[in-house]
Amino acid sequence: MTWSMHSIIKKKSMKKKIIALITDFGTKAGYLGALKGVILKINPEVNIVDITHEVNPFDVCEGAWVLNSCYQFFPLGTIFLVIVDPGVGGPRKPLLIKSENCYFIGPDNGVFSFIYEKEKILEIVHITDEKYSIGKPSATFHGRDIFAPVAAYISLGVGIDEFGQNASECFKFKIPSPQISKNEIIGEVLHIDNFGNLITNIDQNLVDKIERMNSLEITCKEGRIGKISKSYFEGKEKEIVALVGSTGFLEISANQGNAQKILGAKRGDKVRVDF
Amino acid sequence: MTWSMHSIIKKKSMKKKIIALITDFGTKAGYLGALKGVILKINPEVNIVDITHEVNPFDVCEGAWVLNSCYQFFPLGTIFLVIVDPGVGGPRKPLLIKSENCYFIGPDNGVFSFIYEKEKILEIVHITDEKYSIGKPSATFHGRDIFAPVAAYISLGVGIDEFGQNASECFKFKIPSPQISKNEIIGEVLHIDNFGNLITNIDQNLVDKIERMNSLEITCKEGRIGKISKSYFEGKEKEIVALVGSTGFLEISANQGNAQKILGAKRGDKVRVDF
Amino acid sequence: MTWSMHSIIKKKSMKKKIIALITDFGTKAGYLGALKGVILKINPEVNIVDITHEVNPFDVCEGAWVLNSCYQFFPLGTIFLVIVDPGVGGPRKPLLIKSENCYFIGPDNGVFSFIYEKEKILEIVHITDEKYSIGKPSATFHGRDIFAPVAAYISLGVGIDEFGQNASECFKFKIPSPQISKNEIIGEVLHIDNFGNLITNIDQNLVDKIERMNSLEITCKEGRIGKISKSYFEGKEKEIVALVGSTGFLEISANQGNAQKILGAKRGDKVRVDF
Repeated sequence: MTWSMHSIIKKKSMKKKIIALITDFGTKAGYLGALKGVILKINPEVNIVDITHEVNPFDVCEGAWVLNSCYQFFPLGTIFLVIVDPGVGGPRKPLLIKSENCYFIGPDNGVFSFIYEKEKILEIVHITDEKYSIGKPSATFHGRDIFAPVAAYISLGVGIDEFGQNASECFKFKIPSPQISKNEIIGEVLHIDNFGNLITNIDQNLVDKIERMNSLEITCKEGRIGKISKSYFEGKEKEIVALVGSTGFLEISANQGNAQKILGAKRGDKVRVDF
Repeated sequence: MTWSMHSIIKKKSMKKKIIALITDFGTKAGYLGALKGVILKINPEVNIVDITHEVNPFDVCEGAWVLNSCYQFFPLGTIFLVIVDPGVGGPRKPLLIKSENCYFIGPDNGVFSFIYEKEKILEIVHITDEKYSIGKPSATFHGRDIFAPVAAYISLGVGIDEFGQNASECFKFKIPSPQISKNEIIGEVLHIDNFGNLITNIDQNLVDKIERMNSLEITCKEGRIGKISKSYFEGKEKEIVALVGSTGFLEISANQGNAQKILGAKRGDKVRVDF
Repeated sequence: MTWSMHSIIKKKSMKKKIIALITDFGTKAGYLGALKGVILKINPEVNIVDITHEVNPFDVCEGAWVLNSCYQFFPLGTIFLVIVDPGVGGPRKPLLIKSENCYFIGPDNGVFSFIYEKEKILEIVHITDEKYSIGKPSATFHGRDIFAPVAAYISLGVGIDEFGQNASECFKFKIPSPQISKNEIIGEVLHIDNFGNLITNIDQNLVDKIERMNSLEITCKEGRIGKISKSYFEGKEKEIVALVGSTGFLEISANQGNAQKILGAKRGDKVRVDF
């Protein structure tokens, strides 16, 4: 990459703010339209990017995982609006988080658990100031009435302290760690993607250690796998393989097939590695 | 909100036109791509906003509801392209509507029924001038061939009278009103969202009256509810509750559950309030 | 259309680059977010347009069809990123294609088969230069690591020869042609859309010939149709009709119904025309 290319990129990256959306709204109702409308009314120049609106309804863990698997690829300064909010109208706090790289806006229900682990957090604000809200906020749709306006005003350059005061403690769910013993690792399925790949909580470092062993066996439901592959493609068609996938974790997959269906697997299922 | 913030917003809101899309195209075929391509070929600078493409095929009522539940949140001047068009190629008229706030483009089949009730309409044009169409319009895809180009040219500032002549009468379906008697209101389910919330035609004003009664019972299928809650969160998990939702209507819901599935409800089901 | 309108359009069309996406990622995982993030980090000003992310997993033919049915409506210079890539990590080549009108980026697995037939191809580059990749490319997600950065740098004006060398031979699957005899045409269902329309490989030219015959009968599964209609609307409700649809091919459809469900049809089913 030449120097002039770098300078083009740098110049470009200063200009346009991005609000990236992760919700469980689904794509059939008008909720998503309302959310986008509110943002655009405040800042018609912002770039709204759909990540997903099909997090399982109320599934905070899945929302947290989706955010975790993509936020790091976005430009510095991106504003992530993450609305998976089963406790809307209850006591959970609306949050605005500023990290070294990005902003994160959403409910204090654990949806930012990975972010607290991986990002250098500069400040967390409990959103209390209603002067930025749309009318008197409803008790049922804070995405539209509270979170979307905050995201839009952040994109216009309003300082984060304008929206409330420091949040002292935030809720963080325990991200399940694999159990590691001398001859065995027991992990679990954290996420299942559109292709039926079973993404586990066994990371690249652990896999590097496993791969140095003389022999290994990976077990997930009825599936038994004797090696770590480099790509889906290494297996025969529909053969179950294990490999480190694009998110940096061990995946149980099937070449051009659906491992979830073949194995009848679901989130939380154990994945055992013996060596 | 400070004055300087207001002036930033005002300056920003002058610049970029929005075309917001509601269709029943689904998200698997190339139809949506064709629609967006046509718009961008005419005005590459316009901001295309997806509201939904998953209105049930041919379901004009659902399309009308989605539009109704979000259009008011968008900036002044937004152009809504609403393509739920089972009568394409038949005698129904292609319409371009200018209201005090926005533009609405789509077939004359009732999809704008709520708009006629709620917006101050300035002019309705029956689109007849083919000089803005893509080639000779097909008889099967007016979304691409007629409506999308009109939206794109409107976004470039072409006057609405360029596209045809005044439409005298437009089709409007009857939005079902609740039946109100001395001790009872009988409404119905107008829409069911992604969370299984049953949104009725009983509005905030009626609910305000009901709430002043000494006792009340709300019945929907096998569900019986004795009070109006403020938020989903007030019920126990999966408990059926009734509350005024974010669209301003009485909803039958389940806290972190799916009222539609729990009650086996569908659109059109009766919701009775006795008091 | 006035001359001044033409000049507005021309001026506008010079400015903003478009990257249009067709994938089989689904809309639930973070893959789409990662892809968009990578693009926006390199060129925050580019306009990312979602065509579809719901190509059936691994279904290269369907991806090819979706591209074929919409690319021609986009502005000159549009960059199509088409990621249906069951062979990721295997020997298939990553490609960058420049045609007279557009750019196409994706795997060499047949997904560009229609493009080779219909576009004037100027150059095909086998992407080999990793200096534009995101880190060391994974073996499982070239969409994010190789294809997305290439699309983004193309949108910034980097020349196509920067990314690799000329690809001599590319894979092209055989697009099934109808069998034509004196009294009969036997075609097949190429694609089924959201409305259940069965889109065949029998094109407008063949239909023009058929229509000049005294009598004809079209057979698909149990459906028998005696004429070519002009619009869906010509049939009675749910009646099976045949017409040339918006993609220029004979379709078997049902007025306000779903021909796929009524006939129990699937892709590849034969459609016979006797005359």
